[in-house]
Amino acid sequence: MAANTFGNHFRVSTFGESHGPALGGVIDGCPAGIELNLELIQNELDRRKPGQSKITTQRKEPDTVSFLSGIFEGKTTGTPIGFVIKNTNQKSKDYSHIKETYRPSHADWVYDQKYGFRDYTGGGRSSARETVSRVVAGAIAKQIVSPMKITAYVNQVGEIKLNKDHGALDFDVIENNMVRCPDPETASQMIDLISSIKKKGDTIGGVVKCIIQNVPVGLGEPVFQKLHAALGSAMLSINAVKGFAYGSGFDAPSMLGSEHNDYFNEDGTTKTNYSGGIQGGISNGMDIYFEVAFKPVATILQPYETLTRDGSLTDTHGKGRHDPCVVPRAVPIVEAMAALVMADFLLLNKLSKI
Amino acid sequence: MAANTFGNHFRVSTFGESHGPALGGVIDGCPAGIELNLELIQNELDRRKPGQSKITTQRKEPDTVSFLSGIFEGKTTGTPIGFVIKNTNQKSKDYSHIKETYRPSHADWVYDQKYGFRDYTGGGRSSARETVSRVVAGAIAKQIVSPMKITAYVNQVGEIKLNKDHGALDFDVIENNMVRCPDPETASQMIDLISSIKKKGDTIGGVVKCIIQNVPVGLGEPVFQKLHAALGSAMLSINAVKGFAYGSGFDAPSMLGSEHNDYFNEDGTTKTNYSGGIQGGISNGMDIYFEVAFKPVATILQPYETLTRDGSLTDTHGKGRHDPCVVPRAVPIVEAMAALVMADFLLLNKLSKI
Amino acid sequence: MAANTFGNHFRVSTFGESHGPALGGVIDGCPAGIELNLELIQNELDRRKPGQSKITTQRKEPDTVSFLSGIFEGKTTGTPIGFVIKNTNQKSKDYSHIKETYRPSHADWVYDQKYGFRDYTGGGRSSARETVSRVVAGAIAKQIVSPMKITAYVNQVGEIKLNKDHGALDFDVIENNMVRCPDPETASQMIDLISSIKKKGDTIGGVVKCIIQNVPVGLGEPVFQKLHAALGSAMLSINAVKGFAYGSGFDAPSMLGSEHNDYFNEDGTTKTNYSGGIQGGISNGMDIYFEVAFKPVATILQPYETLTRDGSLTDTHGKGRHDPCVVPRAVPIVEAMAALVMADFLLLNKLSKI
Amino acid sequence: MAANTFGNHFRVSTFGESHGPALGGVIDGCPAGIELNLELIQNELDRRKPGQSKITTQRKEPDTVSFLSGIFEGKTTGTPIGFVIKNTNQKSKDYSHIKETYRPSHADWVYDQKYGFRDYTGGGRSSARETVSRVVAGAIAKQIVSPMKITAYVNQVGEIKLNKDHGALDFDVIENNMVRCPDPETASQMIDLISSIKKKGDTIGGVVKCIIQNVPVGLGEPVFQKLHAALGSAMLSINAVKGFAYGSGFDAPSMLGSEHNDYFNEDGTTKTNYSGGIQGGISNGMDIYFEVAFKPVATILQPYETLTRDGSLTDTHGKGRHDPCVVPRAVPIVEAMAALVMADFLLLNKLSKI
Repeated sequence: MAANTFGNHFRVSTFGESHGPALGGVIDGCPAGIELNLELIQNELDRRKPGQSKITTQRKEPDTVSFLSGIFEGKTTGTPIGFVIKNTNQKSKDYSHIKETYRPSHADWVYDQKYGFRDYTGGGRSSARETVSRVVAGAIAKQIVSPMKITAYVNQVGEIKLNKDHGALDFDVIENNMVRCPDPETASQMIDLISSIKKKGDTIGGVVKCIIQNVPVGLGEPVFQKLHAALGSAMLSINAVKGFAYGSGFDAPSMLGSEHNDYFNEDGTTKTNYSGGIQGGISNGMDIYFEVAFKPVATILQPYETLTRDGSLTDTHGKGRHDPCVVPRAVPIVEAMAALVMADFLLLNKLSKI
Repeated sequence: MAANTFGNHFRVSTFGESHGPALGGVIDGCPAGIELNLELIQNELDRRKPGQSKITTQRKEPDTVSFLSGIFEGKTTGTPIGFVIKNTNQKSKDYSHIKETYRPSHADWVYDQKYGFRDYTGGGRSSARETVSRVVAGAIAKQIVSPMKITAYVNQVGEIKLNKDHGALDFDVIENNMVRCPDPETASQMIDLISSIKKKGDTIGGVVKCIIQNVPVGLGEPVFQKLHAALGSAMLSINAVKGFAYGSGFDAPSMLGSEHNDYFNEDGTTKTNYSGGIQGGISNGMDIYFEVAFKPVATILQPYETLTRDGSLTDTHGKGRHDPCVVPRAVPIVEAMAALVMADFLLLNKLSKI
Repeated sequence: MAANTFGNHFRVSTFGESHGPALGGVIDGCPAGIELNLELIQNELDRRKPGQSKITTQRKEPDTVSFLSGIFEGKTTGTPIGFVIKNTNQKSKDYSHIKETYRPSHADWVYDQKYGFRDYTGGGRSSARETVSRVVAGAIAKQIVSPMKITAYVNQVGEIKLNKDHGALDFDVIENNMVRCPDPETASQMIDLISSIKKKGDTIGGVVKCIIQNVPVGLGEPVFQKLHAALGSAMLSINAVKGFAYGSGFDAPSMLGSEHNDYFNEDGTTKTNYSGGIQGGISNGMDIYFEVAFKPVATILQPYETLTRDGSLTDTHGKGRHDPCVVPRAVPIVEAMAALVMADFLLLNKLSKI
Repeated sequence: MAANTFGNHFRVSTFGESHGPALGGVIDGCPAGIELNLELIQNELDRRKPGQSKITTQRKEPDTVSFLSGIFEGKTTGTPIGFVIKNTNQKSKDYSHIKETYRPSHADWVYDQKYGFRDYTGGGRSSARETVSRVVAGAIAKQIVSPMKITAYVNQVGEIKLNKDHGALDFDVIENNMVRCPDPETASQMIDLISSIKKKGDTIGGVVKCIIQNVPVGLGEPVFQKLHAALGSAMLSINAVKGFAYGSGFDAPSMLGSEHNDYFNEDGTTKTNYSGGIQGGISNGMDIYFEVAFKPVATILQPYETLTRDGSLTDTHGKGRHDPCVVPRAVPIVEAMAALVMADFLLLNKLSKI
């Protein structure tokens, strides 16, 4: 397997399986002398961890991170930061029923084809549990890119959509409800929907929206590494993501150039922001905003027909501990990946001029 | 500027500005012994070239590619393939009016901020003319990934949308009309819309859809380089792109897991294909399909207010030769970038097992 | 700090400081389905570990490796292999005397200049203790490149040089003596020399020679990644190395082309092997052999004058636990780095043809 | 073929064969706003070009470089710099005699094994003609790293060695003789030796020494990308190189730590410089110096026995236009590769602190 490293200058290489002894990673390229608040890192893990509410999986993991190198007296030393998060609540036997069958719309079948091998205990490396390492690295990246501020929230669950511009929302209330939607009324509807779907053993998709504020002008490279291309790749690398759109996104195709152009103010800011804070692949200092579409979780606690390893079809029934909707827990993951991208490009931009 | 190289194993490094002497690139990592049809490469350039119809820019460029290395007696030698496309029809003076002003929603202002410099003649490296090198490399990649078949077409212009599944379309007629939509009636409406918008000096956005057929199982890496993440990044790196969605895309958030799951047939194919041919980041052999949203071209031939280099606002009027809608010419570019991704992952997949 | 990752396809990213809680790494790109003998890995660590004889440092470390992922039922799964080696015998207070002074010919002063920071406890990341992670990764690489056989031994200590061709030596006796020289008589002289120098609190340099047998034809890339360039870079990245020479090495400049050319046998082997098994950067199937020159360890247990952090000179005296000569313990490190290079190029070569 | 790109931040991707239409490359990552003296670039090409004296090959090539992008009004724009050097004096028929035979100690046989293909006209990509692109990129890098000064000269030809420390030499006279040795008397002996060997149709090896002055403190990364590891890799990637040694080099193994340590002055400089300007992989501001060993050219104009494509041995006789000794023309190539390394690390070092 290749490509377990993310980033070019601020880089994280991750390891770990859902039901192995531990997950973790190595962060390389972190500049020296940056003060790190370790509590904020653990806090991000807590936002992502399973079992935090009635609408998430009931697997319980403390997800406590241990740092093994690269931090000295509360500051980065410039050396690589090694970290480990132990698994404590593996229930591999939950998965014995799928040892001989492939789950639909999971990575099971393709893994077997690609590697001649499959870790049937909880999906192994294809489990979203892998994102725990991303959240650690992202929480460090967040502190590096400060005063940039990266905020994500749930914008849609099923057909329930928050129809408000992000500028009209109070980001401080996002964490006040378990679905992480900043509008209390919409949040309440979303929670009801997820709860009812969970009862049926079914799952539902959703959309996470992310806003990056206080962005310096000039981040992004104009051709293959446009800033939004890197953000898009980062988001699409998160489990269950089906689409990415920034700024005007999929509304842009219906617009005229004369409507869509963002006209300047004298200070270089723009009167509108259809560009989503990025022009020609380079940040222009306006808010960056984008949406990330998540599919419904593939594991449903219902009967279904599926394929066995010997190539026949069989009736089975989903089991295990799973989220009925991933978007509430995806919020800190989206933020983490956004932070990793911004840290990487912040460093890269130092090379534009001598 | 960094990141003018695309790909990890099948790699292309490109150079060239809109109004410089030439564009071109170096393809590295191309395996030896592959027969290349040079006519097919030129044909892809012809599909992309300006001035091909009344609904594209009137700049005339033959866009003839010269190969300088890496091909011997019609076969790849394994050595890097150097190639050059000369510019012949630069009209830099068309741009003298924007030397002191920044065009809204272009890269002009951010370039000046980032590099302390801006090539005001036609956008320099930020011009979509840069994609000519991508098309050359992509046309080679297409031949490498054969028998995979990569087909793109225009699915939407403004509000006019082709409401047919790609399975119901005849791809052979795509090139029969100047807008590259496989449904003649819809194509005709799209052409009328673009023509009428062009007359007003305005521009309009659109959507290109791409289908990849005959994909081998196993392409893609499960964590940061999921196949769709690489495709997304590739598409988002094309000028004017605002969004990317594959498989069920932005419809997935509204769906239930029980609807969205692709149930297996005995041979490992699936009864439905909401997954878009990719599960857990790895191709499953079903058709890969995705949509790419393009914004309306920023250059409009109308009066508008804009910013000058000295920080004041001024009235100006758009000039030059520009496309009223980019999607018809974006079709071969989308295909080229898709081919580059598939070639890269085809090579990478050789490393999964020893 | 950048560049804590080694390799392009078989890659290891390492972390850890001499006196921190642990060292370790992540191996990415390891193909799936390879049987691993974990005992052989620990055995390589034992060959490298401190305190193994009277001519090495007296620091005692068990150097036991724990694997956290990527191995299942004794086989590689294709997923990244995370591993950790705990430090158990740190004596940071041994170093308090150098908190305010810079040791000559160490990395102390340049670290402070580069990072604005220095880990004065045992050199931190600049300590050769860092190589413990290389040995783990190299021990896995050795198993991957099998039946290639990688053997290193001590060829020179001070002026004492083993004047025998490697073909005339019995590699099986290398581990029979503590200096790792396959000629018992020369070994004995080397041990005596090191012992006498150690008594004076001084140190001495040496040369390690390495032979790679059973190499497949075709490894190496002809231009910037010639196989010997990669081997050279790998060896020069080991602490205290001052030079690298392969095949005829520094004797080549005095030779005539008519003497130096390796004439062919009918089967493609050559009658001589001045080329050192590599022609034009590509392995030709003959034995690869090279020499690696190590300087004397910089830490001497003698009085000397040195620089303080406030820019004055002061008299001091070396302390701590150090090797009087690094080459005996460098033998497994040289082998490990050679194995990492060969594994990387073995994978890369799969991409030469389709 | 992979790895035709050199560098990580200041990168050059090269293409071109000995007897194809042209060679060239793309330089990516060059910062914006740097004034370039194009005459100095051509001057470096003139130092490398064939046919410049009676002791070099008689192939005549003007080696004129054309820049196609990335330079505007004499300054770098930050965009990639594309360049081409045309071949004008190919005599492919000179090589028809080797179409069916493999030349000893050339890359012929391994190419055929690796790629299933070989460009028999002048070695194709394995010819040292490939270095013309390195010299162009290096000449630009030299201007970027200014005021660092990179100087190489011939230190040895056959047994004739210049036994003077580089500090005792006048670098201004290096170009005064055709062998590029700064000591006129030694130069004269070297020229005589080469001339006499050339008459016999034989060839001879040599050593190039390189000194880098005015180096800022802090370049190099402490683990896998030690500055000398990168320099070593760069030098070993040059055709015909067999060894690399920096600072005390292969003398270090015979030295005591008490002799070898470089003791400090109050300003951080050192009283001696056995370290060769690099400590722990990081430049310390003292002169960097290293030696590069070249083998004798493999093409000799004498009769010899060799292998044919059908696996039999045959008598043949070397033909073509070749250098009797590569080191005089290797001098600018060594400088170019050193400049590329220093430019790359100068950029990378900007990322050490924020």
